[in-house]
Amino acid sequence: MGKRIVVALGGNALGNNLPEQMIAVKRTSKAIADLIEEGNQVVIAHGNGPQVGMIQAAMTELTRSDPKKYIPCPLSVCVAMSQGYIGYDLQNGLREELLDRGIRKGVSTVLTQVQVDPNDPAFQNPTKPIGAFMTQEEAQKMVAERDYQVVEDAGRGWRRVVASPKPVSIVEIDSIRDMVDAGLVVVACGGGGIPVFTTEGNHLKGAAAVIDKDFASECMAEMLDADFLIILTAVEKVAIHFGKPNQQWLDTITVSQAKQYCDEGHFAPGSMLPKVQAAMAFAASKPGRRALITLLEKARDGIQGRTGTIIVND
Amino acid sequence: MGKRIVVALGGNALGNNLPEQMIAVKRTSKAIADLIEEGNQVVIAHGNGPQVGMIQAAMTELTRSDPKKYIPCPLSVCVAMSQGYIGYDLQNGLREELLDRGIRKGVSTVLTQVQVDPNDPAFQNPTKPIGAFMTQEEAQKMVAERDYQVVEDAGRGWRRVVASPKPVSIVEIDSIRDMVDAGLVVVACGGGGIPVFTTEGNHLKGAAAVIDKDFASECMAEMLDADFLIILTAVEKVAIHFGKPNQQWLDTITVSQAKQYCDEGHFAPGSMLPKVQAAMAFAASKPGRRALITLLEKARDGIQGRTGTIIVND
Repeated sequence: MGKRIVVALGGNALGNNLPEQMIAVKRTSKAIADLIEEGNQVVIAHGNGPQVGMIQAAMTELTRSDPKKYIPCPLSVCVAMSQGYIGYDLQNGLREELLDRGIRKGVSTVLTQVQVDPNDPAFQNPTKPIGAFMTQEEAQKMVAERDYQVVEDAGRGWRRVVASPKPVSIVEIDSIRDMVDAGLVVVACGGGGIPVFTTEGNHLKGAAAVIDKDFASECMAEMLDADFLIILTAVEKVAIHFGKPNQQWLDTITVSQAKQYCDEGHFAPGSMLPKVQAAMAFAASKPGRRALITLLEKARDGIQGRTGTIIVND
Repeated sequence: MGKRIVVALGGNALGNNLPEQMIAVKRTSKAIADLIEEGNQVVIAHGNGPQVGMIQAAMTELTRSDPKKYIPCPLSVCVAMSQGYIGYDLQNGLREELLDRGIRKGVSTVLTQVQVDPNDPAFQNPTKPIGAFMTQEEAQKMVAERDYQVVEDAGRGWRRVVASPKPVSIVEIDSIRDMVDAGLVVVACGGGGIPVFTTEGNHLKGAAAVIDKDFASECMAEMLDADFLIILTAVEKVAIHFGKPNQQWLDTITVSQAKQYCDEGHFAPGSMLPKVQAAMAFAASKPGRRALITLLEKARDGIQGRTGTIIVND
């Protein structure tokens, strides 16, 4: 019996540059095709850290090369471009893998905007470094002219930092739902989605922010009424006391147990912590929903309960 | 009674840079919302000349800034990025205009690949200049290292030229059709689509080419079994003897008449000629299909027969 599954792909599923991406995507496509082959409806979200950094760096170089002709490119537009950059390879790799298995299923990438709250406290404390290194002079110019926030990065130069607010809603959710209902495999919420917020009336304005892809995937999984949220990463299971002599791999845990482990500081912020938090939020959102954190290649084994860490409601 | 319409947007619908695009898209959204408000199903395609040029220039600057870290970005990937860059603004502008009119309809951009024939004669004679100007030395390096074809452009430097092959098929057509059937407004085939061709097995490889957006729109209109192909541009009607004392605006013409005018050389290659050719191909493809060429703002008047040039089958 097929399930509706949202898969969140981590950085290891895509690589750090175009040649790496083309190789990584082959492996990723096999893992996802395994889920589709078993009759599941699959929606794929992914990160974009290195890719949006590269695109922002390229747009910065363009502005440097001809400042009269080119204005700096807003971060939200760079995220939109990264969805094209990654989605093209991902939908292609998956299409090929499915056809190679004799499965004729449309695969499509939907440009996705994700609403954030302009009053999210994250905007008061931007922490996520993004884009190219700048000289102090360049950094000061950006602060003065474009209201950027910047930090000095360990002697390597200055970088812009942006906020990482929580996702509130997926703007294109109806489209995504219609496509899933029609039997399509959908790539959506790339890079956590293009961050936007409502201003006057019905206008959506791009935010100078990046949204965590695990939280965006969780939001999308809830809105699509998915059965499973699968967060694929570089470890097979979540561990407590990670890297210590008393390290312990976790199989199935409840939301309360997960919360306790979070409170005890077992998971690294910006790494395993957001994954566990997203998994907990999904499992707690409605009876019957489950989340799985495992290795890319173990996705199929994981939903069959043979490996990975499963988070269930109490 | 609603019709299924494919709208091809010309350069004037998007402007040449980001500030121009944000203004142009408001005007464009009104024209398209007029069609949707009357109950038509609308799929939107658009060009990307200035945008893909800018993105290619940015990626070239990035490679120049750190040649060890960044390889040159294939043109097909730049087209994919331009679909994100433009689609984000376009779907947003249209969503806002529809909501302002009380119309709740999902608007989505689908990353679209378009198959071309690797034996298309266009590949033997690349004519379309693309991307940044290069020095002679840089141009020679690109010829030697990456098999580029280049031309010297009137003393302003060297530029890469690429082929403009004819579209054969839209890879994501099933997704687009499902979305239209579900009542969504779809942006697809941006920049004429990401040009790809089949290599061994089921693999699709990006082509160093750009596809004319009018021909791509025509191909999509046929595959979606549309009733109308509307090509929106900067003139209200097509003219013969354009700019001469005996200039004559055309109202409704048949495919045979259009062919005769083409043969007589009335239409400028790379400008009005591909629009008329695309319109002819669509009108001739099945009884009842019609094509309209008119001004952006006149789309609604045009499908009601009040202005523009209509091309019908004989």
